[in-house]
Amino acid sequence: MSDYDIIILGAGPGGYVAAIRAAQLGFRTAVVDREHLGGICLNWGCIPTKALLRSAEIFHYFEHAKDFGLSAKDVSFDMEAVVKRSRGVSGRLNGGVGMLLKKNKVDVIWGEGAIEAPGKVTVKKATKSVEGPPKEAPKGALGPGSYSAKNIIVATGARPRVLPGIEPDKDLIWTYFEAMVPKSMPKSVLVMGSGAIGIEFASFYRTMGAEVTVVELLPQILPVEDAEIAAHARKRFEKQGIRILTGAKVSKVEKGKGSVTATIEDDKGKQTITAEKLISAVGVVGNIENLGLEKLGVKTDRGCVVTDGLGRTNVPGIYAIGDVAGPPMLAHKAEHEGVLCVETIKGLHTHAMDKAMIPGCTYCHPQIASVGLTEAKAKEAGYELKVGRFPFQGNGKAIALGEPEGMVKTIFDKKTGKLLGAHMVGTEVTELIQGYVVAMNLETTEEELMHTVFPHPTLSEMMHESVLDAYGRVIHS
Amino acid sequence: MSDYDIIILGAGPGGYVAAIRAAQLGFRTAVVDREHLGGICLNWGCIPTKALLRSAEIFHYFEHAKDFGLSAKDVSFDMEAVVKRSRGVSGRLNGGVGMLLKKNKVDVIWGEGAIEAPGKVTVKKATKSVEGPPKEAPKGALGPGSYSAKNIIVATGARPRVLPGIEPDKDLIWTYFEAMVPKSMPKSVLVMGSGAIGIEFASFYRTMGAEVTVVELLPQILPVEDAEIAAHARKRFEKQGIRILTGAKVSKVEKGKGSVTATIEDDKGKQTITAEKLISAVGVVGNIENLGLEKLGVKTDRGCVVTDGLGRTNVPGIYAIGDVAGPPMLAHKAEHEGVLCVETIKGLHTHAMDKAMIPGCTYCHPQIASVGLTEAKAKEAGYELKVGRFPFQGNGKAIALGEPEGMVKTIFDKKTGKLLGAHMVGTEVTELIQGYVVAMNLETTEEELMHTVFPHPTLSEMMHESVLDAYGRVIHS
Repeated sequence: MSDYDIIILGAGPGGYVAAIRAAQLGFRTAVVDREHLGGICLNWGCIPTKALLRSAEIFHYFEHAKDFGLSAKDVSFDMEAVVKRSRGVSGRLNGGVGMLLKKNKVDVIWGEGAIEAPGKVTVKKATKSVEGPPKEAPKGALGPGSYSAKNIIVATGARPRVLPGIEPDKDLIWTYFEAMVPKSMPKSVLVMGSGAIGIEFASFYRTMGAEVTVVELLPQILPVEDAEIAAHARKRFEKQGIRILTGAKVSKVEKGKGSVTATIEDDKGKQTITAEKLISAVGVVGNIENLGLEKLGVKTDRGCVVTDGLGRTNVPGIYAIGDVAGPPMLAHKAEHEGVLCVETIKGLHTHAMDKAMIPGCTYCHPQIASVGLTEAKAKEAGYELKVGRFPFQGNGKAIALGEPEGMVKTIFDKKTGKLLGAHMVGTEVTELIQGYVVAMNLETTEEELMHTVFPHPTLSEMMHESVLDAYGRVIHS
Repeated sequence: MSDYDIIILGAGPGGYVAAIRAAQLGFRTAVVDREHLGGICLNWGCIPTKALLRSAEIFHYFEHAKDFGLSAKDVSFDMEAVVKRSRGVSGRLNGGVGMLLKKNKVDVIWGEGAIEAPGKVTVKKATKSVEGPPKEAPKGALGPGSYSAKNIIVATGARPRVLPGIEPDKDLIWTYFEAMVPKSMPKSVLVMGSGAIGIEFASFYRTMGAEVTVVELLPQILPVEDAEIAAHARKRFEKQGIRILTGAKVSKVEKGKGSVTATIEDDKGKQTITAEKLISAVGVVGNIENLGLEKLGVKTDRGCVVTDGLGRTNVPGIYAIGDVAGPPMLAHKAEHEGVLCVETIKGLHTHAMDKAMIPGCTYCHPQIASVGLTEAKAKEAGYELKVGRFPFQGNGKAIALGEPEGMVKTIFDKKTGKLLGAHMVGTEVTELIQGYVVAMNLETTEEELMHTVFPHPTLSEMMHESVLDAYGRVIHS
């Protein structure tokens, strides 16, 4: 008999959620990790950045105290304390994952795992961690060795993409690892890349007072978002004093003493920008190396493992989920894929996720959230459209909150009334988007959304108004 | 020919939204009001309280600055400025309603309207307003006189219920009108009634530093909410220092110099409580008087006009919507009823709202939001239940926000998997509840909600986990 029914390589959100679901389904389950339960997301990604951004949000309120009838003197922040809080939040949740695994009787094996052969995993002692020295095993974890399992799930995640000539050095050229734990506040920051990670750090550092420049290769910031939403966000960022260069390439980086100087080229020519720190946020690549995948003949494509959407690779008994199994590289996609994968192993009736229904969120100020097709993509797909829009300034709650800027945009198929996409920019939209996600999953048409009574006074009323607007029935605009 | 196709008495959220929808449908429309476009909701209710609570929320953050790595000295508020901001928010939105009506070519008739006969409305000059002297007509409004209309919609709203012996006096005994515009900060406040209005004021004044006592006649605060949610909220309020007495009656109120002394009786006996102000928040009653309804034979019941759910009364050509047409007395119910009413007049296919799908929100700290049946009501209705719960402390975003207290509860029909009710307490839940409302309108079962991918890291993930919990599949708890 095998040691386990399922061994999972990687305890990130895909891996540990899959492990818990596997345990619920009666599988003897183990998860292998070399440094942190909860993975990048919980330790160096989604969660600690949300903690940093929360401090920035409240700092921003302080600076606008008067607008709310309040006052305070000598408002300041202690970057060490801000970072400490963020690390504390990660630490608490990291401990929580350990408890959940224990409660569900999932074994944790500490070290670097690789697949020797189908059914066989070898775990070696790790030689390093993000912070440098190898991290101590959590209490009760099993050590290096050979383990057997009927099924092996690769959930090893992703890491920052590195551009040649702009290699992160932990000092002047940062990735999210360093950007998340600044020892002091840099006076100026140059952010390369305007996806969610780049924009969130740009927003954080700008709110805390740094000079921030964002350089994006593509013509639009937040390249996966709807163009109108991205343009709205850009205006807001620029009003906050963030300098944004699109259609621009960092062609050279020279390191000086305590600063970097980047040469930036766009169609207007060349310029140089000097900043204390450069944050490289040009995407991530899957961790497919040193796992034994080549030897086993597991098919990969552009740095990710190829699966059938239910986690199955081309090699029986080997599965992959989450970032390493391809885009969208989002924690909630990984979690859901993990659940689907173990349910598939169990023989339950499953169907692959419809990627058009996976929402995306960026937690800058203003926030951005979306699901489904952008207007451009919907047109490209050949749909005739009904598009609705609603501005925050028409919403009572937004005015009462002192957040009158933003918009909601909804895109319907003219022929069937099907909701194809929803896009939002403004305060709290990351918490609003789920209503549209639920609606899309339940195959809503405009009719049903129009008949839904959204509570007053809430920001969510704008979700209703945007639908009404698409059909010429908007009330407050 | 009549002057108008539709005249609406009352420009509150029911009335003005009905007017705009009527204009969209091609009706010649007028709306009659004596003092404020947007009604109580916008001028003395939902909106200005949200503005006050926003100041309180941010003041609360300031007091906890250290928790976020921030610091400030001499944190304080200027109540005059806080109130001025709140009035400004109402003023801005009030102006907005005027512009919307104008844009939609809806006439505003300024004064007190009454129905002379079916098809005939008389408007007299108002002799007073909430603030005292009659309010000036908005620019372009028509004046008193006789107006004819094929259809008349009564949308006159509601006013605070007055208990004998505890009549509001604008000085020591307040209703929401006075509680919303305090001239200075009272040291102590006694709140009678723990519905949404009472609890929101209790929360506001407590956060700003007053000694607050809440007295509720029923055994539970927030009597319409699920008992478990109300109990959770009560604990939080008590932890904040709000004193709460349930199953308790204010049997006598004596006014002193600068304070009131209330005698409170419960099953343990009598006690007296002295406070600078008493806020009477014991519900509202419909404004059915002086409209000519008796003369016309319009049927009323317990202080409200009886309708068929589409606004039709027993008298042809006379309609009623919103608070005056009965509970739930909520702005979003009024708005939706207004739209349904004019669509019914137009002869469009309409169906009455399912009241089980009208959400309710209370904007205290923590917030409370719900839709559908409570657990007790669902049991009473004979359902066998599957109940799911999820605590805020299991949610990464909640921890990152520094808001780890709260819960989400979902109630399903065991037999069919139908979502019967959803109940939440915690930060931002008033913005979350719409996802469940959408789900109920689309007749969701647990299956579809389980397959929906909620974005990470958001509070909304708890909505998913609570569903999973009802079926023994919760991950993070």
